[in-house]
Amino acid sequence: MNSFQLDVRLTADTVFIGTFSLCEIRLMNDCRWPWLILVPRLVGAEEIHDLSPVEQAQIATETSRVATALKTHTNCSKINTGALGNIVRQLHIHVIARDENDPNWPGPVWGYGDREEYGEPELAEIVGRLQKMLSSGSGYS
Amino acid sequence: MNSFQLDVRLTADTVFIGTFSLCEIRLMNDCRWPWLILVPRLVGAEEIHDLSPVEQAQIATETSRVATALKTHTNCSKINTGALGNIVRQLHIHVIARDENDPNWPGPVWGYGDREEYGEPELAEIVGRLQKMLSSGSGYS
Repeated sequence: MNSFQLDVRLTADTVFIGTFSLCEIRLMNDCRWPWLILVPRLVGAEEIHDLSPVEQAQIATETSRVATALKTHTNCSKINTGALGNIVRQLHIHVIARDENDPNWPGPVWGYGDREEYGEPELAEIVGRLQKMLSSGSGYS
Repeated sequence: MNSFQLDVRLTADTVFIGTFSLCEIRLMNDCRWPWLILVPRLVGAEEIHDLSPVEQAQIATETSRVATALKTHTNCSKINTGALGNIVRQLHIHVIARDENDPNWPGPVWGYGDREEYGEPELAEIVGRLQKMLSSGSGYS
């Protein structure tokens, strides 16, 4: 039996936050932007439009919850969302908090410079805050 | 009474294709990538997560229809979707067909080089083909 496994590159670049009903939520370990990723726990999923209508609606709901939490957490100017997958094919949805003075504003975050990891205390702090915000609704574990 | 008006920059950069129940569908007039945009006809909308659950689900459904049509039209390697809005704040969702040999692959399309307009016959051909594909389901006008 096939079971869901997180892509090795996503595993290396991100930190576990929690899970919703469908998606695993992870923080991109890049302190340049507050940046979360949702990964639907579906074996072989690559494109949103190939999923069932119910799965698509669930992704939309969970993405919206993450976006709302990130906006509240950061009070950012704009949320950017995207599903690209040109490098890592496993379906994952980016949710990023953007501000006028952040790196590469108003351009996209993808492909810009090199990832800069959080320091340990900073990482623990942001993970804790995001877990607290995301766990306030139903379906979080 | 306020009524929906398309942002002037989106008007200048894109070409009308048709409308679904919620969104206007437009082709980015940039022949470097087959690139469609959905604009929900909602006054003042900027962030998906601020919309009602019904509106969010409708956007997901219409985005999926556009992605499926674009994939069928192009037989591309990967669909990229995104809602950024860092420059044009009016909510709009990008759906782009990507291939390994296209400009800036595997990087994003946003912010890369300058837009290159279609020639007239080429534009008429792609608009016609996309209209035909998108109109095959319900709710298209």
